[in-house]
Amino acid sequence: MSSDVAAGAIAGPAPAERKKKMTIVVMSGDFDKLFGAFIIANGGAAMGMDVTMFFTFWGLRAIKKNVRTGKTLFGKMVGAMYGGDITKSNPSKFSFGGMGRWMFGKMMAANNVAKLIELRDMAVMLGVGLYPCQMSMDVMEIPHETFIDGVKDAVGVGFMLMEAEESSVQFFI
Amino acid sequence: MSSDVAAGAIAGPAPAERKKKMTIVVMSGDFDKLFGAFIIANGGAAMGMDVTMFFTFWGLRAIKKNVRTGKTLFGKMVGAMYGGDITKSNPSKFSFGGMGRWMFGKMMAANNVAKLIELRDMAVMLGVGLYPCQMSMDVMEIPHETFIDGVKDAVGVGFMLMEAEESSVQFFI
Amino acid sequence: MSSDVAAGAIAGPAPAERKKKMTIVVMSGDFDKLFGAFIIANGGAAMGMDVTMFFTFWGLRAIKKNVRTGKTLFGKMVGAMYGGDITKSNPSKFSFGGMGRWMFGKMMAANNVAKLIELRDMAVMLGVGLYPCQMSMDVMEIPHETFIDGVKDAVGVGFMLMEAEESSVQFFI
Repeated sequence: MSSDVAAGAIAGPAPAERKKKMTIVVMSGDFDKLFGAFIIANGGAAMGMDVTMFFTFWGLRAIKKNVRTGKTLFGKMVGAMYGGDITKSNPSKFSFGGMGRWMFGKMMAANNVAKLIELRDMAVMLGVGLYPCQMSMDVMEIPHETFIDGVKDAVGVGFMLMEAEESSVQFFI
Repeated sequence: MSSDVAAGAIAGPAPAERKKKMTIVVMSGDFDKLFGAFIIANGGAAMGMDVTMFFTFWGLRAIKKNVRTGKTLFGKMVGAMYGGDITKSNPSKFSFGGMGRWMFGKMMAANNVAKLIELRDMAVMLGVGLYPCQMSMDVMEIPHETFIDGVKDAVGVGFMLMEAEESSVQFFI
Repeated sequence: MSSDVAAGAIAGPAPAERKKKMTIVVMSGDFDKLFGAFIIANGGAAMGMDVTMFFTFWGLRAIKKNVRTGKTLFGKMVGAMYGGDITKSNPSKFSFGGMGRWMFGKMMAANNVAKLIELRDMAVMLGVGLYPCQMSMDVMEIPHETFIDGVKDAVGVGFMLMEAEESSVQFFI
């Protein structure tokens, strides 16, 4: 499959054969949603698609280093309660017996599925564009220097929409 | 509607000159999700896109006035428990210390970010099409007269899909 | 697969006459989200669209028979806690007084709205393609023989993305 795709990529800069594009808005910070987002993003990149991920609100933690954030009292509370990095994300189903993150981690490892943090780092390596939302950064008091290497400059909704308009695939996760 | 679509197919402008279109299905009633939905919708409208929002299930409250709804016992219970208007929406993360709506409101105000209700009213002003889902209205016993001014006539999934098909951007929120 | 796609691109009907296509990624197992997913899928199929649903993670239960799953201890725990079939799905709002599934069932019946399981079976009848995600099946230890009749062979994210790329409408639910 990837060889067919690669062959196609050599053959065509003509409009109809232009590189396919995908835009994913990541608002969720849940383990399972992030997992899906990065699997889809990396899958697209491996198929030769030009992939943009726009991280907003709870999604910002997915591209953060494990450092404290916050200037004001509220900002520090956000930093303390929703802090850390992508390894702190929990499955969206809290009712799931509380085992959540740990159990799924075990089950995924048993099936040779990459860890979430590995999928995230793979996205950077594959050239997926990881863009943080400026407004969310301001509100949640998360400065750009707390993001991992490879994260692009902060952008606004206008940038995301221009990317999305040119994309053949868009998802809101 | 279908006659307009047919007419457009015959007499409309060339594809490249056509106004860009976006369709957003809003099923969530969460503060953060609604915030994202209206920021995206208003951003699109400001960029000249033709934006359709289809409100269904929990999303209906976002376009409601602050009035009680419900005819049957169940309907009245829905009206009492999930009633009010967009100002009653809570963040999707309940575990967030309980401060949720109030704290984020403060943090957004500190960054000169518009309130959710202001973003909603701005959407009406910018000509974003706010459409309620007829089936959800029936099931939840929310009649059209309880919606704010500017909300369009109730429509079904067929209308939403025709809009989505013509849209270069679609999101399910 | 990609050779079929290439052949189709050369020999297929003109773009304007091509069948419209929709791809829905179903990660949620919530009653309300599944309800929306099947209403949209069936609506699209009824309008003549070619509809693909890609079930992953919590979404897998929607296409399962009411049988136990799991080989390992963890797998059996998943099977016990998140087992059963589509009739076990609960609304995404847990805070909704606990009545959830039962009450909405009553309200939907009162408005002659089809049950969720009926909508699912209708999707099979209408020719909607129901595809399970192989990686999720492996991790959650849900084998293909536990799915209902009509479910397609398991696929990966590459298949889903190729479908999505050809689709005029895509949703992540």
